[in-house]
Amino acid sequence: MNNRQIILAERPLEFPLKTNFKIVETQRPSPTNGEVLIELNYISVDPYMRGRMDEEGSRYTPFQLNKPLSGDAIGKIIESKSQLFKIGDYVHGDMNWEEYTVVNEKNIQKINTDAAPASTYLGLLGRTGLTAYFGIEDICQPKKGETFVISAAAGAVGTAAGQLAKNRGCRVIGITGTDQKVKYLTNELGFDSAINYKKIHDIKSALREICHKGIDVYFDNVGGMISDAVFANLNDFARIAICGQISLYNAKEIPLGPRIQWYILHHYATVKGFSVRNYSNRYEEAMSHLILWYKQGKIKSCENIIEGFENVPKAFVGLFKGENLGKQIVKVR
Amino acid sequence: MNNRQIILAERPLEFPLKTNFKIVETQRPSPTNGEVLIELNYISVDPYMRGRMDEEGSRYTPFQLNKPLSGDAIGKIIESKSQLFKIGDYVHGDMNWEEYTVVNEKNIQKINTDAAPASTYLGLLGRTGLTAYFGIEDICQPKKGETFVISAAAGAVGTAAGQLAKNRGCRVIGITGTDQKVKYLTNELGFDSAINYKKIHDIKSALREICHKGIDVYFDNVGGMISDAVFANLNDFARIAICGQISLYNAKEIPLGPRIQWYILHHYATVKGFSVRNYSNRYEEAMSHLILWYKQGKIKSCENIIEGFENVPKAFVGLFKGENLGKQIVKVR
Repeated sequence: MNNRQIILAERPLEFPLKTNFKIVETQRPSPTNGEVLIELNYISVDPYMRGRMDEEGSRYTPFQLNKPLSGDAIGKIIESKSQLFKIGDYVHGDMNWEEYTVVNEKNIQKINTDAAPASTYLGLLGRTGLTAYFGIEDICQPKKGETFVISAAAGAVGTAAGQLAKNRGCRVIGITGTDQKVKYLTNELGFDSAINYKKIHDIKSALREICHKGIDVYFDNVGGMISDAVFANLNDFARIAICGQISLYNAKEIPLGPRIQWYILHHYATVKGFSVRNYSNRYEEAMSHLILWYKQGKIKSCENIIEGFENVPKAFVGLFKGENLGKQIVKVR
Repeated sequence: MNNRQIILAERPLEFPLKTNFKIVETQRPSPTNGEVLIELNYISVDPYMRGRMDEEGSRYTPFQLNKPLSGDAIGKIIESKSQLFKIGDYVHGDMNWEEYTVVNEKNIQKINTDAAPASTYLGLLGRTGLTAYFGIEDICQPKKGETFVISAAAGAVGTAAGQLAKNRGCRVIGITGTDQKVKYLTNELGFDSAINYKKIHDIKSALREICHKGIDVYFDNVGGMISDAVFANLNDFARIAICGQISLYNAKEIPLGPRIQWYILHHYATVKGFSVRNYSNRYEEAMSHLILWYKQGKIKSCENIIEGFENVPKAFVGLFKGENLGKQIVKVR
């Protein structure tokens, strides 16, 4: 039986290119005891994967050359050698980038497609939403009336975290890269304001004007010059959650910027880096909140779905060009 | 009756110079109701004062030109119009830089010269010790066996914080600027290791060698290139207390350095800026611990005492040349 895989044909030098990947024809694998065969429905592409494409330097095992890549995905079980799962179950987990894949029962979880569409478990009700949840609830702890700024605001985590901050009564300002995204954030997601940083010469001054009371909380997904502008506008006791640094993921070495320690000291700020994986013992609590809020209509799922397995590389590369509005997902079939 | 004051004759351009200050002859002030006349015994000079010498940019009220400077000091009451204090009491508080000064009873506290020499209340049992205490107890929270690195290790806060970390069972490494200080830290204060950064070409590699298990906690008093080297050696879940940035206090603008956000994210680190003033509601708890540990001989007071009121400017300027070993104090008489 036919199958297609996406393999890492060469390691990206800086920005990833579609030519770094190759689609190869292969055979469908067969499950052995405790395993299931899954027909993939949705594949998530995420910025952190860029690090795994380098030979070293990532926290996670590097992807191997000429082997399939892998990541968060949703699929339907079409053959089961597991007592825990049956044919027809929709499951979520780390899966190879291939149309049909075999996974051990320990590495997947069933999803409830009655509560939300399957793809949502890759976004708002998956790692993306969990990341936003812990960044907000554990690190930022924004209070009513505080000014909350988020970078890559129209991205996967950005759209989720901004809504969570809004629900906590903050004034939410999004930094994003197109006028269309600005409109989406303010019209569809209820952000109080949003700016297209690509059209602004002096982001620091623009933020000073919009955040006239200063910035109490910063949820950072990008780093670089955008963060420089935010740090220059912090209030005392500001909290900064560093969730991502997409501006750096393609850099060969750590770039120079204004030293932020002075701002941290001067404003008694707290800066904390995190990954959703640090909070695995709290997933249940977080998921129950996210599902509740989603059902109550308090948070919306923002998904950017491209169709076609062959478009996974294009979707991944697009993350670094800011092409996605919300969570970037590929619908395999 | 004669008196001498030290006034700010001109604002320092970058590094402070002795010529920025002037000693003027004046009259002894007289206390009115609720005030006392104090004969100053000890004056503390502190790096944060540099910021107040600028026209703007400091958190605290700028010093005025041609007016006396002020700061932490110890003195003996020689005339009292207060119900709370009597002649002969030794008191601590913010006082003008003058040989005799008048202070309101609300702004001074009595010190117990039986528990420790008066000067110690400017150092280990004063703001210096309190700063070290909250940096360690609240922010760094170093655990037994962890590697603890401190910059400006032989300075006022450095000597105190390093000892507190040592008492918590850490491996303590000090970064300092002379061989004499290296010896002092390791021979007198029990630091596990210390380096003279001025003699080391590649601080990052030197730290990697000494801190072979990586750095869990960093107590930062200086910033700049020393901090760059520390951030490049952090362990996961590292804690960084930013207590001072003496490398920046004389800078006209914020200098460039490698962006630390990547390290913070990659290692899930927490960086927090603080001032002892953030913890004023916990002074009593802290002082009771510090006095107990001091009496038990668990922490030593490190003081660098210069004699002569006229030497206050010299002592202050010396802070930025690393001339002090421990807390810099001027004995007025």
